[in-house]
Amino acid sequence: MKVKLLDYTKLEVADIAISKCYNKEPYKDLEKQQARINRVANVSKHSSTIEHLVYVFDIDGISRAVLQELARHRIASYTVKSTRYTLKELRDEKEFSLSLDTITEDFKRAEKYVVLTESGKVNEAIILALEELRWLIVQGVPNDIAKYCLPEAYKTALVMTINARALQNFLELRTSSHALKEIQDLARAMYEVIPEEHKFLFKDKVNEKDK
Amino acid sequence: MKVKLLDYTKLEVADIAISKCYNKEPYKDLEKQQARINRVANVSKHSSTIEHLVYVFDIDGISRAVLQELARHRIASYTVKSTRYTLKELRDEKEFSLSLDTITEDFKRAEKYVVLTESGKVNEAIILALEELRWLIVQGVPNDIAKYCLPEAYKTALVMTINARALQNFLELRTSSHALKEIQDLARAMYEVIPEEHKFLFKDKVNEKDK
Amino acid sequence: MKVKLLDYTKLEVADIAISKCYNKEPYKDLEKQQARINRVANVSKHSSTIEHLVYVFDIDGISRAVLQELARHRIASYTVKSTRYTLKELRDEKEFSLSLDTITEDFKRAEKYVVLTESGKVNEAIILALEELRWLIVQGVPNDIAKYCLPEAYKTALVMTINARALQNFLELRTSSHALKEIQDLARAMYEVIPEEHKFLFKDKVNEKDK
Amino acid sequence: MKVKLLDYTKLEVADIAISKCYNKEPYKDLEKQQARINRVANVSKHSSTIEHLVYVFDIDGISRAVLQELARHRIASYTVKSTRYTLKELRDEKEFSLSLDTITEDFKRAEKYVVLTESGKVNEAIILALEELRWLIVQGVPNDIAKYCLPEAYKTALVMTINARALQNFLELRTSSHALKEIQDLARAMYEVIPEEHKFLFKDKVNEKDK
Repeated sequence: MKVKLLDYTKLEVADIAISKCYNKEPYKDLEKQQARINRVANVSKHSSTIEHLVYVFDIDGISRAVLQELARHRIASYTVKSTRYTLKELRDEKEFSLSLDTITEDFKRAEKYVVLTESGKVNEAIILALEELRWLIVQGVPNDIAKYCLPEAYKTALVMTINARALQNFLELRTSSHALKEIQDLARAMYEVIPEEHKFLFKDKVNEKDK
Repeated sequence: MKVKLLDYTKLEVADIAISKCYNKEPYKDLEKQQARINRVANVSKHSSTIEHLVYVFDIDGISRAVLQELARHRIASYTVKSTRYTLKELRDEKEFSLSLDTITEDFKRAEKYVVLTESGKVNEAIILALEELRWLIVQGVPNDIAKYCLPEAYKTALVMTINARALQNFLELRTSSHALKEIQDLARAMYEVIPEEHKFLFKDKVNEKDK
Repeated sequence: MKVKLLDYTKLEVADIAISKCYNKEPYKDLEKQQARINRVANVSKHSSTIEHLVYVFDIDGISRAVLQELARHRIASYTVKSTRYTLKELRDEKEFSLSLDTITEDFKRAEKYVVLTESGKVNEAIILALEELRWLIVQGVPNDIAKYCLPEAYKTALVMTINARALQNFLELRTSSHALKEIQDLARAMYEVIPEEHKFLFKDKVNEKDK
Repeated sequence: MKVKLLDYTKLEVADIAISKCYNKEPYKDLEKQQARINRVANVSKHSSTIEHLVYVFDIDGISRAVLQELARHRIASYTVKSTRYTLKELRDEKEFSLSLDTITEDFKRAEKYVVLTESGKVNEAIILALEELRWLIVQGVPNDIAKYCLPEAYKTALVMTINARALQNFLELRTSSHALKEIQDLARAMYEVIPEEHKFLFKDKVNEKDK
């Protein structure tokens, strides 16, 4: 998976908002801004003050299994690659097979379209499903019908916009060791690309492992 | 698919809300209530007055393909059957095969788990994928990994709560002939179970076909 | 202030939603329903499962000062008495004065329109402002301009719809001893009218005093 | 009133989102970006694609009357000057009076705290209310009680964050000639500070007058 940060709000905006609340002057100094934002938003739990901080992520190559979970976070905006419009991308691929001659190369080609797992048996089932899908598309079956046999490993891409308050909640829930492995990876990858000076807002929410 | 209405707000509540706004008396009479609600919420577009009307739907047997689209309607609440917890339901099934001897019976058994389409070829791919999945579960592959080869035809179930304003928007978009066929059916099935005295709120939003 | 519950979702709906998630049967028994809802929504923090429970409150006689705070809870629906349309209600009142002869009676009349406080001095200022407002309305000043001298003590009325998850948050924040006194009273009054069998969802959120 | 734009999302982000949807390349060229965004978000009404564009406004000197209306737009984030914490700002002011000697100067001083109207009579009532409030604060009446006689003309300040989709709706409703005059002015002032290359998104929503 690839995660990029397309844009984000300047941190000082949250400090300006907070200073407005108490009729104080905003700070010029980054550390003072961070300290005040932390005190008000995190310690005193006036979390709405960090809703002004918004992050736009460009996410590529997650499975549609993860998309199902991601989209359940409703305080965020999503624009997602449409399978209805894009399945034709399979039309020019040649067969994906499990025959010994080509399996290595085919797995490589397949990874452009599907997320593979740690289980060889599951991966074989994914390749079989991908080949069925490709064949149906080549046969001219309309996307809207063919998509019913799309395996949830199928890769998708999206732009996701989320504010700092909702992102705290997302990172806390989805870096938990109880979360689906792939969404843990996604959550950590999102944390990684957050600007350094914003990370103090989230670091306590990200579960151990490799913060 | 099966759609039931589990609960809903009494229509008079919207009329009480509107009368509050103008310091008037609420109506006792249903037709007068309907006329005023229509005038204020639909004609004058003060749509927030019908947010007080909330519907709880029990939805069974839609595909996870449709769930992907449904969950994109973020002003609503969803509690969905978890594949992570429930894939074990396949453990006690015997093989699903396409052999001529059993295909009719197997398709029947399969429909408990998957939505079938108008395309025989797609349905065969779905059955193959279902059998792969069943076999992986029987082999003891953990749900979290096996789910990557789940076909999007796999059936899910959910409880969905949505207010009248968001439901108007949902019905308008999803009964359009451009929408995925199955979500059109879902939208119409939801419209069907709305209480008769509430239907005036939605009937102009539901696209022709069989309102 | 007067707070009535106009409608609410049946508790069993949340249990049906939860059982759907795990592919279990809903309970018939109230105590079992409550125990499971508490375990999933409160202990395991799957709070979205109680978004299906929605309450519609009819609230009368709170100040516009409190309305300012109330409306900051954005995950809820409000239909509020419009000062733009209803200030004419003052037109038929006679003068409100602080003269010793009529002060008792005038305070009584005034309470139809304004929330009085524990401070006599503030109350006198409120009565003066009410009289100015009344006089301006009688003089034919348009509501949209006259409303600029409306004191925040001015009473309003509204219908408010909120789900159990957002209501938990509201009650926790607004029954705190740090909250404005009048919104504490409102929060407790709302808690009082919640159906008995729903109260287990909220009782830990309501701060001591007189739960 | 003063309205500044503190931060905003780059326009190209919406084009990247849209191109993701159809698996196309984003445009480099501004005019092409604008044309595609307009076609998808406005003409084809896939409005969620412009939720990625977020604007942060710094708003100063609007009345609390307008704040009541503004906060009703719930898909936005607000951090507002707290009267509970800031009324002490009146403590060092000297008397506001309507005596002929000082009225010009006093009106000037008052405008720091209150929005004046086109009606001299209303303005006098506002000054009287301001003086009452000042006097109560000087007497040591706690803010939480004194605020009940705050006139709605009292000025507030806030930081408001809103995405392009919600802003379209706000501008359409609030530049209407039916809206309160001051919120019309606010809406137009917000439109003015939107970056030029974003204005095509909103210009059809802003009602004639002085677009």
